[in-house]
Amino acid sequence: MNFTAAVIAEFLQGTVEGDPQASVSDVSKIEEGKDGTLSFLSNPKYEKYIYDTQSTIVIVNEDFSPVKEIGATLIRVKNAYESFAALLQFYEQSKPKKIGVSNMASISDTASLGEDLYIGDFTVVSDHVTLGAGVQLYPQVFIGDNVKIGEGTILHPGAKVYEGCEIGAHCVIHAGAIIGGDGFGFAPNQENNYQKVPQVGKVIIEDHVEVGANTTIDRATMGATILRKGVKLDNLIMIAHNVEVGENTVMAAQTGVSGSTRIGKNCMFGGQVGLIGHITIADNVKIAAQSGIPKSIRQEGAIVQGAPAFDFGYYQRCYVVFKNLPSLRNQIIDLERKVSDLSQ
Amino acid sequence: MNFTAAVIAEFLQGTVEGDPQASVSDVSKIEEGKDGTLSFLSNPKYEKYIYDTQSTIVIVNEDFSPVKEIGATLIRVKNAYESFAALLQFYEQSKPKKIGVSNMASISDTASLGEDLYIGDFTVVSDHVTLGAGVQLYPQVFIGDNVKIGEGTILHPGAKVYEGCEIGAHCVIHAGAIIGGDGFGFAPNQENNYQKVPQVGKVIIEDHVEVGANTTIDRATMGATILRKGVKLDNLIMIAHNVEVGENTVMAAQTGVSGSTRIGKNCMFGGQVGLIGHITIADNVKIAAQSGIPKSIRQEGAIVQGAPAFDFGYYQRCYVVFKNLPSLRNQIIDLERKVSDLSQ
Amino acid sequence: MNFTAAVIAEFLQGTVEGDPQASVSDVSKIEEGKDGTLSFLSNPKYEKYIYDTQSTIVIVNEDFSPVKEIGATLIRVKNAYESFAALLQFYEQSKPKKIGVSNMASISDTASLGEDLYIGDFTVVSDHVTLGAGVQLYPQVFIGDNVKIGEGTILHPGAKVYEGCEIGAHCVIHAGAIIGGDGFGFAPNQENNYQKVPQVGKVIIEDHVEVGANTTIDRATMGATILRKGVKLDNLIMIAHNVEVGENTVMAAQTGVSGSTRIGKNCMFGGQVGLIGHITIADNVKIAAQSGIPKSIRQEGAIVQGAPAFDFGYYQRCYVVFKNLPSLRNQIIDLERKVSDLSQ
Repeated sequence: MNFTAAVIAEFLQGTVEGDPQASVSDVSKIEEGKDGTLSFLSNPKYEKYIYDTQSTIVIVNEDFSPVKEIGATLIRVKNAYESFAALLQFYEQSKPKKIGVSNMASISDTASLGEDLYIGDFTVVSDHVTLGAGVQLYPQVFIGDNVKIGEGTILHPGAKVYEGCEIGAHCVIHAGAIIGGDGFGFAPNQENNYQKVPQVGKVIIEDHVEVGANTTIDRATMGATILRKGVKLDNLIMIAHNVEVGENTVMAAQTGVSGSTRIGKNCMFGGQVGLIGHITIADNVKIAAQSGIPKSIRQEGAIVQGAPAFDFGYYQRCYVVFKNLPSLRNQIIDLERKVSDLSQ
Repeated sequence: MNFTAAVIAEFLQGTVEGDPQASVSDVSKIEEGKDGTLSFLSNPKYEKYIYDTQSTIVIVNEDFSPVKEIGATLIRVKNAYESFAALLQFYEQSKPKKIGVSNMASISDTASLGEDLYIGDFTVVSDHVTLGAGVQLYPQVFIGDNVKIGEGTILHPGAKVYEGCEIGAHCVIHAGAIIGGDGFGFAPNQENNYQKVPQVGKVIIEDHVEVGANTTIDRATMGATILRKGVKLDNLIMIAHNVEVGENTVMAAQTGVSGSTRIGKNCMFGGQVGLIGHITIADNVKIAAQSGIPKSIRQEGAIVQGAPAFDFGYYQRCYVVFKNLPSLRNQIIDLERKVSDLSQ
Repeated sequence: MNFTAAVIAEFLQGTVEGDPQASVSDVSKIEEGKDGTLSFLSNPKYEKYIYDTQSTIVIVNEDFSPVKEIGATLIRVKNAYESFAALLQFYEQSKPKKIGVSNMASISDTASLGEDLYIGDFTVVSDHVTLGAGVQLYPQVFIGDNVKIGEGTILHPGAKVYEGCEIGAHCVIHAGAIIGGDGFGFAPNQENNYQKVPQVGKVIIEDHVEVGANTTIDRATMGATILRKGVKLDNLIMIAHNVEVGENTVMAAQTGVSGSTRIGKNCMFGGQVGLIGHITIADNVKIAAQSGIPKSIRQEGAIVQGAPAFDFGYYQRCYVVFKNLPSLRNQIIDLERKVSDLSQ
């Protein structure tokens, strides 16, 4: 597909500076710009690249004032980053969607199928499954008995959903994600063997949730493990049984949440964070990457770091002293000598 | 299925207090109790919920003495938690089991198949595989050449077992788990390229082992990577080549064990723990979440924390001082000033 | 297959000491040696095992001088470890290779297929895919639209490659690895919802790269996430969008690299390391396991540890004092008392 600067500017309600007929068929980062591509400039750190970029068109903020000549055609808009993201979304939506049901899929007669589905090769749709309109199941997906999936939700290749789980509308579940595996529950007995405690609950994922590749969400022992509306999970995350993650909370890769912990809304967790079980995290809490959370955080908007974690800014100050410990120890030895001298 | 209080009490050898004909068809947590469900009360922290719960029947300890009126029918037993777990196990076992071999599976003529198998759609059973009686292979499972699987073992959707590995009886391997991938072995050569060292060993998993979703167990360079009887691994764990994990050892999610490390019996590791390679961990060792283990732990029953880890209680004391480091530094500065004054 | 000591010695240009007709059909570690197997002795720590080993043949260094009688036949070579690895490679290559295209695979008419392919059951090869000669796709692999895979590359069962990604020649992608999932990009809007930023880039993997089981490599927002020639990644690693990993860099399991970070050549990262986004790591940098890297490392060959990480040796010294903090605090209290006494 080709778009001219004039067409793009009209779509974005921006103004063209240069050749309105300049046309692009792809996007690129401004520092890697190529002929025939569209880039954007938002962060001033990248301004240096605009003077030499090979990109044909660059979207810039209204108030951008170049200090040298620019070869590319510019489109001026209110917010270059948001406009570019909107264009990408438009571009994605304009791509032909996968549609149709493969005759190499296995679909139970008892499944209830919405309209305009895509079901890829070697995908399994088990008994009494309900798929909303426009659901896309890529190849090799597994949907267990009695699962419900809301309209417009996409499951990428090889994602697996165990029986009885529920996924809302407009979710994206990436390749290899496992929804509804057994919670990790074993009761020790007298001989120090472990008896499995059956996990008879399920997973409920609300609307507009994204689950990253190879992330695992365990089913509840009883009741449900819940991801609320708008939750975004990166890759290789572990959500244990009976956890609840509040609306629009975002977690970076490789974070793990232990059983029965409740997390508030609009939290942001860095990568490789670990939370123990049976605790509560307030709304808007931010946790720095690699932190360990051993107890509830009740203060809304707290920002914490460390393992175990405490206040972020105070952690930084402690760590500065940690990095000075050898000289601190020498100061103490020196003081002891002086005090000993004084005492004599 | 419906069960009356009378029937459940008989099964548990308990006594009914209330309506023996009260009947339930599901289970719930006492704090989320609903009409027609069965709950239990064991932990006194939850006693407050029993007075208002909507659960129809609640299993309680023999010695429980309510302080207010209770709407639910009670069943008194010796140990409410154990009785409830026993009921869940009974309920699980009473559910109809998956059985039968899909005609959309690919099963080698040379495979040896036990009785009462379940083999789901798009599962692959390769050459010279041996499957014991009652083995359940969910859809999209891969069983490589010469693999042996003992009776009653379940592999959930998409689990993969590379050639030559052995899995015992009554194991549960969750979705996406990878058994027998190549160990990570490369020999640097003079040009700083790495030559792959072929991994010609295998994985041996003994009886009653559970392996969590997306966990990976690498094959040995030579010999075998071994999980002994009763080992329980949570999700997203990494067990490297030639590791041996002792009987009934339990590991929480996202823990990693490096190559050739030997772990004793009945150990308990928290989540996100890391162990380096070629070390030995004694029996009954407990490792706190996120700890790093850089050398052998030879003391049975040791409890450790930290990265690198040392004694748990002592770590806690060090960390208390760490959290006081800024004021400790100020104390030292203050002391230096005073000593300097005294010296003049 | 059986090989005599004479044949092996000729292959390795070594000399036999013992029975040239002694023959072996398998390999074993010297400490687990069995009749009919071949072992090697390189590390002097293991010398004690050679006197009692049941191995039939042992490869040893030229200059090895036993202190007791040895039952096994010896083959003396320049470098016992390298010779043994070479034998393993020869053995691997002599095994019959999987070949042929399953009629239970789904292969698009528009795919371009090289010679001597292996394509297993239930594997999907989508539209406009290009597969080089000798490519091996095990069962249940997914290859998305427009993917290119170079000659001799192997994808193990269940590996998934999203559309448009490129994998070079002679790579090994292990089971469950996900190449090209969406980068984790969301733009917050005024109502604190997150809008997905479409990820229109791809992943480029150059030649001789190995990717471990269940590792995930996200596609770029624009442009490409790149693994350069010879990169080796262990299991359960996360490589985020727009990351570039330099030639022959090696990462141990469960390490995570955040978006747009650039890593140099010949680096070595331990397990469970985390790097934040948008930083640069110089060539030959070594990072200790579980370290956290919050900013660029510009010094070639730096060795770092800690979270946040700094110089390895200096970290060790700080940690020694950390482990002494309780007594350090006591020293300070003691000093304060003495100074107070002196002041009076």
